[in-house]
Amino acid sequence: MENLVLVRHGQSVWNMENRFTGWTDVDLTEQGKEEARWAGRQLLAEKFEFDIAFTSVLKRAIRTLWIILDEMDLMYLPYEIAWQLNERHYGALQGLNKAEMTLKYGKEQVHLWRRSYDVPPPPLDWDDPRHPRFDPRYKHVDPKLLPACESLKMTLERVLPYWHEKIAPRLQAGQRVLIVAHGNSLRALVKYLDNISDQDIPELNIPTGIPLAYSLDKDLKVISRRYLADEETVRAAAEAVAKQAEAKQQ
Amino acid sequence: MENLVLVRHGQSVWNMENRFTGWTDVDLTEQGKEEARWAGRQLLAEKFEFDIAFTSVLKRAIRTLWIILDEMDLMYLPYEIAWQLNERHYGALQGLNKAEMTLKYGKEQVHLWRRSYDVPPPPLDWDDPRHPRFDPRYKHVDPKLLPACESLKMTLERVLPYWHEKIAPRLQAGQRVLIVAHGNSLRALVKYLDNISDQDIPELNIPTGIPLAYSLDKDLKVISRRYLADEETVRAAAEAVAKQAEAKQQ
Repeated sequence: MENLVLVRHGQSVWNMENRFTGWTDVDLTEQGKEEARWAGRQLLAEKFEFDIAFTSVLKRAIRTLWIILDEMDLMYLPYEIAWQLNERHYGALQGLNKAEMTLKYGKEQVHLWRRSYDVPPPPLDWDDPRHPRFDPRYKHVDPKLLPACESLKMTLERVLPYWHEKIAPRLQAGQRVLIVAHGNSLRALVKYLDNISDQDIPELNIPTGIPLAYSLDKDLKVISRRYLADEETVRAAAEAVAKQAEAKQQ
Repeated sequence: MENLVLVRHGQSVWNMENRFTGWTDVDLTEQGKEEARWAGRQLLAEKFEFDIAFTSVLKRAIRTLWIILDEMDLMYLPYEIAWQLNERHYGALQGLNKAEMTLKYGKEQVHLWRRSYDVPPPPLDWDDPRHPRFDPRYKHVDPKLLPACESLKMTLERVLPYWHEKIAPRLQAGQRVLIVAHGNSLRALVKYLDNISDQDIPELNIPTGIPLAYSLDKDLKVISRRYLADEETVRAAAEAVAKQAEAKQQ
């Protein structure tokens, strides 16, 4: 039985504008909403059922979840919202245009920031009004736990404890779980589930809006994994994501 | 501090068609969605904040909640979904046209079924495919607890235990609570909070889409209550609800 499905949210306004988003709470574009509807229709067509969903505190993930639940006529599904499933925090890069950053710092540095496993981007100052400690949605979180920037490794180090504490017990109790989240929180999870090395993870691109279904055994070892789309669709979508960081020529 | 807000969902497809709805999972009309947006804008304009929301398992309530959260830029608010906040179960009357029922059974009988405190409508058969025990959303509920029909009194008898067990402790812990539900589950709650007699409750009409804000003390006694609208708007909305059951002349 496929008991775990991961969905990466589709295009957001800042994806479209090619800006580093991180924890900034930007919404989906119309294309992003259509990606979510497509994901919901695929899950419905394949008769997936769920007992619980998990998502981040960011509206582009929550709206993707809402649209999927609506398409599946499953609006009554309970879900939990967790900051630990947020996108990687991009620190002082948040809001900057990826192409401009590439021209300024060079493709290698930006690629390092975007895709290295353990190089964090420059942090937000502790007193920067964009620091998450000033955001009411994190008021119940110890400010010392809230990142001012994160590498993928740092992201993984807050995703996995949440996985072990909140998500894994559901699966072990026989529940079917849907997770709707972000490129890097899902990369952290996939790295763990599929046992991908620190060296290989930078090149893994998870396509947006294509459900990734796992069958996990009772010890949560992977029996099978597949995208709910044909190979060509998955490849094209992953390539589109990989190309995002390339500097655009005017 | 106003720490409890109740919102009754707006027009649904079957409200518009003047049919008994109960636990049937019909969606909002465009007007119903607009009522929800209006409620969200009122709450935003008055700077309400919430720590948790509660709603039923029925999509007309959940969608109303979603629209309110979206309008308030509060999509990250956690909420709990509970069948105990569902509309009153209208038994074998579900799906029937209110005006036709009035012509067939008489205004008094329909008024009794709709508005008496303790006269339940005719029940669904145990094997009727519409019985909630066949609906996957209630699969975790003991079938013997699931109603085949309900009076307002029976509705109150499942709303209040949920209030005491799940909602009251939140308020007593200092949290601010939003409840988005239905005409009769909210009437049950208002009867309890405002100490309305069995004799008077049939004539209480809660208008749709107008937030009702309570200030409750630490023992959850009512300090104040008000609708977030002017008196004329509240009166007109309540009258519109009261008139729904009247038989329409062709």
